[in-house]
Amino acid sequence: MQQADRMNRLGTETAFAVGAQAAAWAAKGNKVYPFHLGDMNIITPKNIRDAAIKAMNDGKTGYCPNAGIPQLRETLAREVSAQRGVEYQMENVAIQPGGKPVIGKFLNVVLNPGEEALYPNPGYPIYESMIEFLGGVAKPYAYRETEDGFALDMDQLESSITDKTTVLIYNNYQNPMGAESSTEEMEYLAELAVKHDLWVLSDEAYYEIRYSGESESIVRFPGMKERTVILYTFAKKFAMTGWRLGAAVGPEEIIAGIAKINTNDESCTNHFNQYAAIEALTGDQSGPKKILQTLKERRNAAVDALNDIDGIRCYRPETTFYLFPNVTEAMKNKGFDKLADFQNAALESTGVSFCTRNHFGRPLPGETNKYLRFAYSGIDTDEIEEGLAKFKNWIES
Amino acid sequence: MQQADRMNRLGTETAFAVGAQAAAWAAKGNKVYPFHLGDMNIITPKNIRDAAIKAMNDGKTGYCPNAGIPQLRETLAREVSAQRGVEYQMENVAIQPGGKPVIGKFLNVVLNPGEEALYPNPGYPIYESMIEFLGGVAKPYAYRETEDGFALDMDQLESSITDKTTVLIYNNYQNPMGAESSTEEMEYLAELAVKHDLWVLSDEAYYEIRYSGESESIVRFPGMKERTVILYTFAKKFAMTGWRLGAAVGPEEIIAGIAKINTNDESCTNHFNQYAAIEALTGDQSGPKKILQTLKERRNAAVDALNDIDGIRCYRPETTFYLFPNVTEAMKNKGFDKLADFQNAALESTGVSFCTRNHFGRPLPGETNKYLRFAYSGIDTDEIEEGLAKFKNWIES
Repeated sequence: MQQADRMNRLGTETAFAVGAQAAAWAAKGNKVYPFHLGDMNIITPKNIRDAAIKAMNDGKTGYCPNAGIPQLRETLAREVSAQRGVEYQMENVAIQPGGKPVIGKFLNVVLNPGEEALYPNPGYPIYESMIEFLGGVAKPYAYRETEDGFALDMDQLESSITDKTTVLIYNNYQNPMGAESSTEEMEYLAELAVKHDLWVLSDEAYYEIRYSGESESIVRFPGMKERTVILYTFAKKFAMTGWRLGAAVGPEEIIAGIAKINTNDESCTNHFNQYAAIEALTGDQSGPKKILQTLKERRNAAVDALNDIDGIRCYRPETTFYLFPNVTEAMKNKGFDKLADFQNAALESTGVSFCTRNHFGRPLPGETNKYLRFAYSGIDTDEIEEGLAKFKNWIES
Repeated sequence: MQQADRMNRLGTETAFAVGAQAAAWAAKGNKVYPFHLGDMNIITPKNIRDAAIKAMNDGKTGYCPNAGIPQLRETLAREVSAQRGVEYQMENVAIQPGGKPVIGKFLNVVLNPGEEALYPNPGYPIYESMIEFLGGVAKPYAYRETEDGFALDMDQLESSITDKTTVLIYNNYQNPMGAESSTEEMEYLAELAVKHDLWVLSDEAYYEIRYSGESESIVRFPGMKERTVILYTFAKKFAMTGWRLGAAVGPEEIIAGIAKINTNDESCTNHFNQYAAIEALTGDQSGPKKILQTLKERRNAAVDALNDIDGIRCYRPETTFYLFPNVTEAMKNKGFDKLADFQNAALESTGVSFCTRNHFGRPLPGETNKYLRFAYSGIDTDEIEEGLAKFKNWIES
């Protein structure tokens, strides 16, 4: 009696180990500054909670349709259409228990064993894990640091496409880098997807976590709507991470396949919470506005503090709640060669807890710069300032 | 650009088509008596709803651990231990968004492509669907009607085991038949699983939907605890179908594998609702008691009415909320050969809507008897009586 072979190919989020390490350090009586969390320390706005409570007490406690309640599918189709400049109907939307399930379900519908899927590295580790779990070949593509952020290494990306490549996973407004494509970069990527006839997963989890400017989606480029599934989530904009509410938005036949997987997997997403999602989209928007304001303050505090440290260079992203500081010089100055050693020493010397580049995929050949990932979604501004002051003192001492 | 091959092997619940047909008939202004639903028309007890609301307003709106909050895992381990007579700890429990996800996750952890899995037929159609989706070989095993219910055809079951058989799916307190194993039958099945070294999924969704006597689990037989995963759900006992709350309970290493799939799939189950599950298990039990009383009244009304119809024979199960009447004679008397024709005619002549044997797997060689499946979880007693009186008049006319 053994476990199935596919389990040997299943990865995980190693970032959870950082959380456990921080918790253990805190349990010993130490102060911890949690920059490792992708979670939020902000409660869901009251009007959204109240809508769930009303639906629950109105008896929406039985099953609902596998792809979600029609009102939510329609509302979300309108919302995504308006924001992306592309026309979607209810049939293009399948509600999910979170944004994350869209990754596995999309790959189940489009990726055969032996086929190749391109995915960002550094990137959200579940892409690589699910590609390999399903018997696909995970092909990483890289970003390089520029004057004003990070840009795709398009030559490297294009050169890794073969006749077995069928899928491109794209995460604009990117975790962990906070990277954002220029319109030209997105256009080039769209042309590449059309040219090589690729299915595209556009992970847009952070589409609306934006502090200035406007987001745009790859679906609006020619030939993209019919080959792209958008990963949508209510988690970040509305501080609903623990609700597990998201959606797949894409071509009707792929969404039908995803909904058929819903039938076989979780049947449907929690019924009454879907009314909260409708309220989130159509009700009072002061809640999400305030959340964004809070996050912006935190971003400014964190970026300023990091850039004030000798040997650290940190791009100021206009999206996501992640920072990806380059700490190559700082590590050299402190005499560290390995990211894990630096991370452990920082925690035990200052209480500052963060993930590193290595929690987001195996380093690629030729990588020499060292990066950390700081999330500011789960830590208040005063704690950001206090923690990073200690971090500065430690690094510069 | 095509969908992946595995999608051709994915089944569904054809019973949903019956629901759609009934809804269409009702939309034309016709009265419908819904016996096709596996859903419940009973709201979740108030103390359980209130616990979710309190947790939500207390800010349990962020992520929780992938396998569920420790308090719920501990509480459920104690509960399942007490009821099954087997010792489980927190590490043996992984909370899930429903009982259904346990089917696919269990099979992902233990079943390799090409290996054979035994499953009940008639039975819940997701077993066959998920076995084949994952590349396994679905091997049906049969029940036969007895004087007092249904019994496993043990010879047929044993003869279909080969050296490629690695999994047995067992659903005692069975959907759709309401079948219940004798202790001897369960013991024989346990010995068979040990002898052939099979992993066992024990789908115990209806373990506590019981009107007299006591349920027992196959896990309590020698050699079973280490090879069995229990599918547990809060859906039926507590009228929480739409909440999507369940659990996998089993050997620590299999549960760890299932929790690792959680990390890759939905991250975690809704956070605040898990506090409702704790209240369900440990709080005031008058709610579930009343639910069971209501279901018992309905069962009696439905069984009595069905047995009062010429050419129908219906066993009175002490568990589940399903009836599986033998309508061979009634169909012959009315001149029907096909179940689908009989079902359509009954809906259009009487408004009585039900599933048939054919919604629970392909008929096996040698099957000659005709069966329907009546669910009484979604219809009140007076409607049961009114609908089945019309059904009787129609059949006997």
